[in-house]
Amino acid sequence: MARTKEFDPDVALQAALELFWRRGYEATSVADLVEHLGIGRASIYATFGGKHELYLKSMDRYAETTTNLLVSTLSAPGPALPGVRETVRRLAAECGDERRLKGCLVTNTAAELAPHDTAAAHKVQLSWEQLETLLHASLTRARAQGELPEGRDPLALARLLLVLMQGARIVGKASDDPIRVRDALEQALALLD
Amino acid sequence: MARTKEFDPDVALQAALELFWRRGYEATSVADLVEHLGIGRASIYATFGGKHELYLKSMDRYAETTTNLLVSTLSAPGPALPGVRETVRRLAAECGDERRLKGCLVTNTAAELAPHDTAAAHKVQLSWEQLETLLHASLTRARAQGELPEGRDPLALARLLLVLMQGARIVGKASDDPIRVRDALEQALALLD
Repeated sequence: MARTKEFDPDVALQAALELFWRRGYEATSVADLVEHLGIGRASIYATFGGKHELYLKSMDRYAETTTNLLVSTLSAPGPALPGVRETVRRLAAECGDERRLKGCLVTNTAAELAPHDTAAAHKVQLSWEQLETLLHASLTRARAQGELPEGRDPLALARLLLVLMQGARIVGKASDDPIRVRDALEQALALLD
Repeated sequence: MARTKEFDPDVALQAALELFWRRGYEATSVADLVEHLGIGRASIYATFGGKHELYLKSMDRYAETTTNLLVSTLSAPGPALPGVRETVRRLAAECGDERRLKGCLVTNTAAELAPHDTAAAHKVQLSWEQLETLLHASLTRARAQGELPEGRDPLALARLLLVLMQGARIVGKASDDPIRVRDALEQALALLD
């Protein structure tokens, strides 16, 4: 009987997330995963169920981290708009350094897999639903607190920011000049003033 | 000597464009191209130089068509804003039917290839530069003709629309409910009123 190499599934999952995030689904082979995770093909299948299942679990892991950050930024007591601005400007900063190359795993998945992969598309939709809901809630609170000009629609603004943030991720992937993304995001933020 | 099968390179290029557009670069093998184009592997290499070169030529073909449509929409004499609105709303319509699944070849390329493929990234940048320039020109003309409210920045608005349009393509890929994209685009168009 072959000796079983012990490994931490949690560490392996994080390593898989990093690889998928950087390379995408199609361009990552099971052989790449074996090499990068340092565990055998059989262990990958036994622990995670295969490449596709591992990808979906990587998306869950990614969503946990991003949701926690979003919730903590958007749920500070007091004025609500600073959290919205911080969320948008954090993205602008990421589009201006080497993090732009990896982009966002959710945006990447939407572009690569969503049209033909129902399970992946579903996870993308959940992530966007969550982002839209959190922004909508913050903007609704902002309006109730008199921070948002009269006549602004919190839900439509949340949708503008969500769609724009996906675009910023894509533009950031193909350009190292951050000014286009920064200008675009600041135009949208001006609608909050 | 094997008989040479005759084919029209122009028809073959259009077929390659359709396949790459729907599937992406990595997920399209040379065997897929042979089957879809109905010509042999050797002919593909002899005529186009290989899969990567064929992809780049497909991008050029795509850019020709989209640029012609953009120029004709944005260059009508008289008021300039109707052309800008039409360009944005045409995209909104595409995000609401089955065309959303293919999306835009430029956006797809930015997401999939740009971070590690310099030649593809360069073509993406050229397309965006062109879109931004055309929108900037139209918005500048609109301001000179008194169509745009005082204090609006034509270049920043052009950038907002460009980045937002990339986002709409991505959101359209993962959702068949067009309302999120429509709301987002209308919020941005409201800045022109």
